[in-house]
Amino acid sequence: MSATRIRELIVTPIAFSDPPLLNSNGCHEPLALRIILQLVLEDGTVGLGESPGGAARLERLEIAAQTVVGMDVFDATAVSAAIDTALRPTVDSSHERGWTSSAVEVACLDAQGKLLGRPVSDLLGGRVRDTVPFAAYLFYKWAEHPELDGRPAITDDWGAALDPAGIVEQARLMHERYGFESFKLKGGVFPPDEEIAAIRALAEAFPGRPLRLDPNIAWTVETSRYVAEQLDGVLEYLEDPTRGIEGMAEVARTAPMPLATNMCVIAWEHLKPAIEQGAIQVLLTDHHYWGGLRRTRELAAVCEAFGVKLSMHSNSHLGISLAAMTHVAAAIPNLDHSCDTHYPWNSGDEVIVGGPLKIENGEVRVPTGPGLGVDLDHDVLERLHRRYLDSGMKGRDDTGYMRTFQPEYELRLPRW
Amino acid sequence: MSATRIRELIVTPIAFSDPPLLNSNGCHEPLALRIILQLVLEDGTVGLGESPGGAARLERLEIAAQTVVGMDVFDATAVSAAIDTALRPTVDSSHERGWTSSAVEVACLDAQGKLLGRPVSDLLGGRVRDTVPFAAYLFYKWAEHPELDGRPAITDDWGAALDPAGIVEQARLMHERYGFESFKLKGGVFPPDEEIAAIRALAEAFPGRPLRLDPNIAWTVETSRYVAEQLDGVLEYLEDPTRGIEGMAEVARTAPMPLATNMCVIAWEHLKPAIEQGAIQVLLTDHHYWGGLRRTRELAAVCEAFGVKLSMHSNSHLGISLAAMTHVAAAIPNLDHSCDTHYPWNSGDEVIVGGPLKIENGEVRVPTGPGLGVDLDHDVLERLHRRYLDSGMKGRDDTGYMRTFQPEYELRLPRW
Repeated sequence: MSATRIRELIVTPIAFSDPPLLNSNGCHEPLALRIILQLVLEDGTVGLGESPGGAARLERLEIAAQTVVGMDVFDATAVSAAIDTALRPTVDSSHERGWTSSAVEVACLDAQGKLLGRPVSDLLGGRVRDTVPFAAYLFYKWAEHPELDGRPAITDDWGAALDPAGIVEQARLMHERYGFESFKLKGGVFPPDEEIAAIRALAEAFPGRPLRLDPNIAWTVETSRYVAEQLDGVLEYLEDPTRGIEGMAEVARTAPMPLATNMCVIAWEHLKPAIEQGAIQVLLTDHHYWGGLRRTRELAAVCEAFGVKLSMHSNSHLGISLAAMTHVAAAIPNLDHSCDTHYPWNSGDEVIVGGPLKIENGEVRVPTGPGLGVDLDHDVLERLHRRYLDSGMKGRDDTGYMRTFQPEYELRLPRW
Repeated sequence: MSATRIRELIVTPIAFSDPPLLNSNGCHEPLALRIILQLVLEDGTVGLGESPGGAARLERLEIAAQTVVGMDVFDATAVSAAIDTALRPTVDSSHERGWTSSAVEVACLDAQGKLLGRPVSDLLGGRVRDTVPFAAYLFYKWAEHPELDGRPAITDDWGAALDPAGIVEQARLMHERYGFESFKLKGGVFPPDEEIAAIRALAEAFPGRPLRLDPNIAWTVETSRYVAEQLDGVLEYLEDPTRGIEGMAEVARTAPMPLATNMCVIAWEHLKPAIEQGAIQVLLTDHHYWGGLRRTRELAAVCEAFGVKLSMHSNSHLGISLAAMTHVAAAIPNLDHSCDTHYPWNSGDEVIVGGPLKIENGEVRVPTGPGLGVDLDHDVLERLHRRYLDSGMKGRDDTGYMRTFQPEYELRLPRW
């Protein structure tokens, strides 16, 4: 048996703390779910991966775990294809299948790098930058997760942010703690004029810094055009104001700034129609669903060929994902904008050895150790896995959580 | 000094034998020029590369050789970028700069693979196939290079092919010697009706086998449309019938078969207009000018995203190029057609240890040794370099060579 064959894929669901961050779907719950992958080779080498959690994704990763045993870790493209084939009968969406194959591809590359003694960025063509810039990810938020069913309130050290002053204060904290030099506000929470006011307040507090607003399709085409006009000259780009490629194309026809997306272009088959219709000028890539790190470099090449600028999307995540994001961002020449990251909101529960990766001057230094350059803290993993089991959670439900406190809350997209 | 830094890039121009192959520009000369690269690392590891020859490309590779010293071989993307930057002041065309950086990228990947003990295909995502299919590359040709200036005539064992029967006989030999199962005819040599007759003769002799015709922009739009109509149901694809993206788009509007190119889409900036105009349905990629092997995988992803099928172009080449072509073709999932290769015409002067790579059943087995899996025969290199020096040749001149024998011959594109 070759030493580079896959012996086992260990799939461990975990839960970690998440603050009460608001968005167009409701509010983040106190726990976010994630899944940690350990790809074990015949020689004992272990490659790490990190995927969003939830029952469906867990089940698909269990199928992937059966599929990849015996395959060679260097056949990463074939491994992805085999997983895609295995999921096809039960998962229609290529985007959804992509979440599974992507997480395994990262684990393959980590294992390859560890075997070869090279950082993952070297396997992607080498670094074109030694540090990767990230943006502060600002959220409207409550001061605490309210007391619930006998559970005490859960506070954090960020405080509330429910108006322009609160958002500016949060941005100041983000800048102070991490040095971020660009700022993205998760919108779609309050009426558009309030969010316009928040962006203007940020522009005043941080003159010249790139600003972005992302209401997660909370607006109609008409509202989107109104906000775009109001924020002419203020926003670096406007992200996913409205639903769908056609809707985005309608907004793009009048918007004075570029439109960005991680919602209407999330699979390879979306690229052609979106680009043909001029629906987007910036793509927020995400290696977690575009097929992994090599596919992300390929996606960057598509963007380059068609003049679409490149940024990076983030969900709630821990350090394995951050390391992977940093490696691929370091290898992509046409990374046009700083990347998104939820990391400051979640890194208190870091599962890698040594605690959170450092963000300094708004940048993460590309790890130079073998593979992703991070190792798993098995004690923390066990603790977070136990928390997952104890939680009984099966998925993310921002809307249901919001309704717990505001029973009249309805999910409406567009809302304005 | 790190062991993985580049100590030296040795650039060796060579000349090897080429039969009298006819095309829309004239006739191949008795010698074809090529350049062999040896990228030497601080630890003595050597990565190989192979580039088309000629004075201009030699000069650019000498500039590249100065540029890359001291860089890390794993920073392949940065190495390519540095070469591009160094050439920019003197070479306007990104396509022309691409020839230089591509050759060096292959040498970097060969050196990486040798250092890591892995085949280059593994560095590109791993093999999705163990053998790569190639097409027989049929040419109208003379029986010999005629006697010239006291030099005796130079014969070969392929014989003449100047009519349909000659082309069919050549195809039979190609099939017999190499097992090719698909056939491409280099056209643009005789009036279109004669070439239509040759393709029909091939279709009769090899029923059901994929057939292609490539006149190298010898025809007007009108003639191209006529030929396309005549060969409806017979050709797998029609390659570069006419000049330019606009011309190809005009032909594509009526042609019943896909149009292919390696002439109107030869740099990243050509992709958007060609795809927008529907000018091509098949792209013949070529790692020698698209930026190397990783860029070729990226290009394949662009083609995948936009529904353009993928094939592979070839110039006269030796085994280092064939090995590189085979590795990247093995790693690309969406290799839709068998690849072109001139190899049977040129492999008599093979510069790699052990002689020519085998083509069996029309396929080349992907080398599994470290790097490209081929080594340089230094005695042959010396002999071919001496032949280059003795030849005094500075470049390829198919038209001038044709005029030696047919003084009235004129280069006219389109000719029909």
